[in-house]
This record gives sequence, structure tokens and C-alpha cells, in this order.
Amino acid sequence: MSLIVQKYGGTSVGSIERIQAVASRVKQATDQGHSLVVVVSAMSGETDRLLGLAKAVQAVPAPRELDVLLSTGEQVTIALLSMALEASGCPARSYTGAQVHMLTDSAHNKARIRDIDAARVRADLDAGRVVVVAGFQGVDEQGNITTLGRGGSDTSAVAMAAALKADECQIYTDVDGVYTTDPRIEPNARKLERITFEEMLEMASLGSKVLQIRAVEFAGKYRVPLRVLSSFEEGAGTLITFEDDTVEDAQIAGIAFARDEAKLTILGVPDQPGIAHRILGPISEANIEVDMIVQNVAPDQRSTDFTFTVHRNDYDRAMAILRETCTGLNAREVLGDPAIVKISLVGVGMRSHAGIASRMFEALAVEGINIRMISTSEIKISVVVDEKYLELGVRALHKAFGLDEPSVTPA
Amino acid sequence: MSLIVQKYGGTSVGSIERIQAVASRVKQATDQGHSLVVVVSAMSGETDRLLGLAKAVQAVPAPRELDVLLSTGEQVTIALLSMALEASGCPARSYTGAQVHMLTDSAHNKARIRDIDAARVRADLDAGRVVVVAGFQGVDEQGNITTLGRGGSDTSAVAMAAALKADECQIYTDVDGVYTTDPRIEPNARKLERITFEEMLEMASLGSKVLQIRAVEFAGKYRVPLRVLSSFEEGAGTLITFEDDTVEDAQIAGIAFARDEAKLTILGVPDQPGIAHRILGPISEANIEVDMIVQNVAPDQRSTDFTFTVHRNDYDRAMAILRETCTGLNAREVLGDPAIVKISLVGVGMRSHAGIASRMFEALAVEGINIRMISTSEIKISVVVDEKYLELGVRALHKAFGLDEPSVTPA
Repeated sequence: MSLIVQKYGGTSVGSIERIQAVASRVKQATDQGHSLVVVVSAMSGETDRLLGLAKAVQAVPAPRELDVLLSTGEQVTIALLSMALEASGCPARSYTGAQVHMLTDSAHNKARIRDIDAARVRADLDAGRVVVVAGFQGVDEQGNITTLGRGGSDTSAVAMAAALKADECQIYTDVDGVYTTDPRIEPNARKLERITFEEMLEMASLGSKVLQIRAVEFAGKYRVPLRVLSSFEEGAGTLITFEDDTVEDAQIAGIAFARDEAKLTILGVPDQPGIAHRILGPISEANIEVDMIVQNVAPDQRSTDFTFTVHRNDYDRAMAILRETCTGLNAREVLGDPAIVKISLVGVGMRSHAGIASRMFEALAVEGINIRMISTSEIKISVVVDEKYLELGVRALHKAFGLDEPSVTPA
Repeated sequence: MSLIVQKYGGTSVGSIERIQAVASRVKQATDQGHSLVVVVSAMSGETDRLLGLAKAVQAVPAPRELDVLLSTGEQVTIALLSMALEASGCPARSYTGAQVHMLTDSAHNKARIRDIDAARVRADLDAGRVVVVAGFQGVDEQGNITTLGRGGSDTSAVAMAAALKADECQIYTDVDGVYTTDPRIEPNARKLERITFEEMLEMASLGSKVLQIRAVEFAGKYRVPLRVLSSFEEGAGTLITFEDDTVEDAQIAGIAFARDEAKLTILGVPDQPGIAHRILGPISEANIEVDMIVQNVAPDQRSTDFTFTVHRNDYDRAMAILRETCTGLNAREVLGDPAIVKISLVGVGMRSHAGIASRMFEALAVEGINIRMISTSEIKISVVVDEKYLELGVRALHKAFGLDEPSVTPA
């Protein structure tokens, strides 16, 4: 007898048949006595179709009007899913973002949720209805329709779960959970039964695109238990928990990686206060996102070497800016490499376990993989290596840390 | 410097190109200094597409959810038209039915407008923006999305014009105005520059499907000057005016007709109070709409003959019911004819001009057309004739009343 928020993405509601499949999955949960709120995305392909119409009319569509247009995508889904539920004898009622008072700021196309008035939803649940809510969309204080940006439906679901103090927020996707690493690279990758929020955040930000990172942050902030599971297969998926809930002794949750990185280095920079800002200021002004940053004393002990990574698409622009900075700072030289990748070991266990880093470096050394850059945080160690070593590096680490063997006792 | 409400139907916004054509027509009006509110329908075909999706999910779609679904059609159009206006340098803002507070009752799929809060629209107009409003849709007091039923966009436009006290409400269609009769039957049919509301109501209810009849009633009630014109051609269209505005001496505005009528007669009914109800009660209980009703004393002076018309589709059912009634009432006989049509002369002028009826009957007699039934109202004379005489009768009357010659001095 729990209150569950379920979220289904575009692929899960991509056709009439799939919407009907979602309806029977929802009905199954209500038959078990649960109260259900279902958050849905637009049918797959619909958002792109609408975007195409918009661009045919206006090269850069007016942001306010684009939101009016795109929000019809989820509105179609909520109506059809509610009909499918009613057709299967399951009373249901749909709500747009505006109707459910999903209050956001006024940043069209990338709005952020501020508040939800869940009173109407609660009344429907009390009356025994399934509530079907349009994800991805909200309304600002003036009543304008807003959207949260791509993937925002995850955040809508978590926000609903937080507002309703739901027992669990279930995100249905086309994968059946969170894996120790990408199974396309390491066939022995293992599905995790649990992962902590902090680990999930690191995994997500490093390219394991299972959940939208803002949704994970939101769930962590409001302590919403989150579960990732497949809408096409049965299974319990992966539960994202708060650290104190876990009773595991695993040191490492998984291995994340980011392709398409590029590395830039400026050598022999005068070692003065404010130098990092003088180097990175022009880069960020050009809207280039910087990921890893490493600064080392240069061999001459009086100047410094400064290295950072950017997305490969930004490499040429970043290099041009850095060359100008080099001249301005009277630095020695600028170097770059657009063919590197980042591999990261993620796990809350490394806080309390020593020697993780040296085991990682050893495992890479055994395979002859040269480490070009290192950066660490509380629950993550990232290394930059040549692009060609990506697969080999991921597999070597997966084996070295025993990730193919279950380390959590099944509940 | 007028405030104008323009309404464009589905064909007028049926493609990106047509939406852009509407945008330039709107911009032209704003360039002339007018303030514009534009009410639009769904792009042609879209409502049927959505209806198809609904029926694939639920044989009889839940009315509330059907409205959520169908209302996305106009929402797409308002966004695209607003973008097209912005792209042409014309500031614009879109509103859904809910956003413009088009308050209706809760009769989903056929809601009626109760009130509009035009404050936000006025603020936008004052700020120099074109306001683009979704037709056909509203919101009930609980915030549920409603729709007005097919053709409801005309009513939305008139309601907006009434709420804003607009100078004119212009309904753009695929015809260039209201004609004296159907040009497909009488090639000399002439476009009217003006027609009164009462005449328009009679013309519309008799099958001249230019305007939705509820929209005309609404406009008459709130005294909104209404104009019908073409979105594909230039021209002033037809203005629908209040009688006192007109300075014409025309007796007849036009000739309307209704095909597919059927006639039923019950002969020798005892002439008692309540007899009409005993005959028509069972018919209306079967949801059959009755049009003309004529009752005459029978030749024996002690009983009565009773005749009425129904739509041809209802003929067989009505006949079966009437046979039962005949037995119950001990009436003499039941007769029927499923191959008749109704031709009507419409014009406020017949109030003050005598001899219209006899001129009408004479014109038909000259052509050898036998009149089977006659019914009159203040501004209309209708006759029922055999189906085969439809075209001949319309042409004869068109000529007899000189409708091919302009009778109003152009303004």
C-alpha cells in the first residue's frame, strides 16, 4: 500500500501498443493496492517533429512560443495513457504541467522547478484514481507555459515524488538498471542492485546517461528513493539510496568514462596569484566548458604548467584563445591533444579504504597504459589516457576491482 | 485604428506556407495601425489525426481526456503562428483557452462559453503585441480543459470580440462571403455586401454552412459586427449587421435550401387537445429531430391531418414509430415521402412588404413545381417540393426576386 511515482520516457510510450503496455503495468501496481502517479514524456519522435515545424517557421524559434509548441507532445501522451487506463477499467485523470501547478522560473526551454501544489493530485489519489502527469513542462508565475529542457521529465517525476512524499520514484527506461560500467565495452559489467546518490551523480556526470543529473540532485536533496528499471523487461532495477541505508562493503560502485575529450596545456606560466583566472577566464567567456584542471610547478621551480580538458568539439576554439593568452602572459608554450579520454573509478568506499588509487594506477600500468593526467575527488579518481586505451583501461579496472562479482547481498 | 478580431480556420492554417500567409495578412493590418487578436483552429487534418489516435486506444474515448488531446491541435497552431509573426518582425504572444480564461461549462466535447477575462489580452494589445488565441477550447471552473465541438473556433472568436468590445470580428474561410444562394446551383448567385443577423441565422440553419450558427447567435446577442471573408483572396467579404444599420430596400437576402429531407403524414387523427404531443413525443424520445410541422383540418371537418419533416436518415425509424402511433390513436392512415427538399426565401424585408409569398408561389407554379408543404416565419417562407425540383426551384426564385442584381449601394 505505497504511493509510487512512475516515470516513462519517450521510447516507453512511443506507440499505441506501448502506451497500452504501460497502462497494464500501471494497472498491475494498482491491483496490488498501490497508489500511482505516472509521469510521461512525449511519444518518441514527437518532440523532434514539433521542433522541425518550429524551425521551418522561425530559424531560432521564440523561446516562449517554442515551449507552447513542445508542451503539446506530453499533453498528447497523458490523454492517450489516461484513455488506455480507463479502457482497462482503471480510473485515471490527466494533468498538464500548468494544471498540476508545476511552478517554475521563467527561463523558457530550460526552466527550473520551484514548487508543486499537490492538493489536486492527492484528492484524485484519495478517490482511487491514477494521476497521469505531463513531464518536462511547467508554468511560471504569470501562467506562461515553460519546459525544463531535454530529459526534464525525470526531474518532473522526482519533483512530484518529493511534493507527495512518495515511497518511491521509479524511472522506467530502455535499460534495466545502472551497471558497473558500459556493457558494450565490458561484457562482464554487472547490474547494481543499489548505488548511492553521490556515486550515481558521479556516474551520471561522467557519461552513464541513465538518469538526468538534475533529477538525481533533486532526489538527493529531497531524499526521494529513486529506482531505475526497464519498461520492457521485468526486474527490480537499481535502487539509488542514501549512504547510511547501504550495508555493503563495496569500495567501488563502477567505472565511468567520457569519450571525446581534449587536453590543452600552457607551459611556463609565471607563478603568480590570479594566474588560473587569467588563463580560464577567456575560455569560459567563450562559453567553453572546462572539465578537469591540473596545475603543477614547472621544472624550473619558478613558473608553473597548467593543463585542462574540454569537449573535443571546443578544442580548436579553446586552442586559439589559449595561444593569445600565452602571448599576453609571456608564457613559454602551448600544447594540446584532441584524442584523449577520461576514465573514472567511482565509489563511496574509497573514502574509508586506502590504496585504491595505487591499485588503479598499477592495473593500468600492467596493461602498458600511460596516464596523462590525474584528478581526484572524495569518491572518484579520474585519469586521462590516450583515446586508444579506453576499452582496455575500462576492462582492466573492472577486473582489478572485482566488479563482475556481486558484492551486495541480494535483499 | 480599430481593434479587430480575426479568425482563421483549419484550411487557412493547413501548412507552414499558409501559416506564413496568415502572418503577412495580420502584419498588413497592424501596419495599418490596427490592434489585432487572431483566433485559430488546428491545422487541417490534425483533429482527425488525434481522434484516430484516441479511438485506437479507447473505442469511445473518455470525454475529459479527449478534450486534453484535441486541444493540442490549436496549441500547435498558436505557437507556430506567433513564431511566424515574430519572424516577420511583428511582436506576438500566444494563449491557450485556459491561459485566456475562456471559461466554459463542464460539458466536455461540446462546452459552452460563459465568460472571458480579457485583462491579459488587453495588456498585450496595449504593449503593441498581436495576441494569438487558440480557438475551439476553454477551461471549466475546476481548471479542466474543455472543447466547444466542431466549428467552435468561430464562437471563440466572437466571444473574444464581445469581451474586448472589438470593432469587428472577421471570420476568414475558404469562401469569399455569403451568397444569395449556392453558386454551384445558380451561377448568377451574387455575393452579399451585407446581411442582417436574423437573415444570416436563417441562411445558416438552412444549410448555408459558412458560419457556425452558435457563433452567429452569440454575435447577435452581444452585438458584435461580424464579417465573413476569404483567406485566399482579397475582398471585403460580407458584413453581418444589425437591422437598423442597413439602408437597403432589399426584400429578400437569399435563398437557402436543405436537401435530404423526408416528409411523414398521419391522416384522420381525432382533433383533440394534446394530439400534437402524442404524435411527436415518441419521435423526439427516439432522438429524431423534427423540422417543419404542419397541421390542417381534414376534409371530414372532425379529424385532422398532421405532417412533419425529418432528416432522410431518420425516415425509416420515424415511419415505424408513426405506424405504432397511428394504431394507438385510431387514426386513418400513415403516408410518407423520403424524396423531398426544402427551399426557403429569407429576408427581413418581407416583414414590411406584402405579396412576397404569392410572388414566390407564382414563380414556382410557372415552372410547374408542385408545392407539397408550406411554412412561414417572420423573415422566411419555406416550401417543401419534390427532390427533382431543387435546382429548378432555386433558380426560378433567384430570378423572380432579382437577386442577381445588386440591391445595396456599395459603401
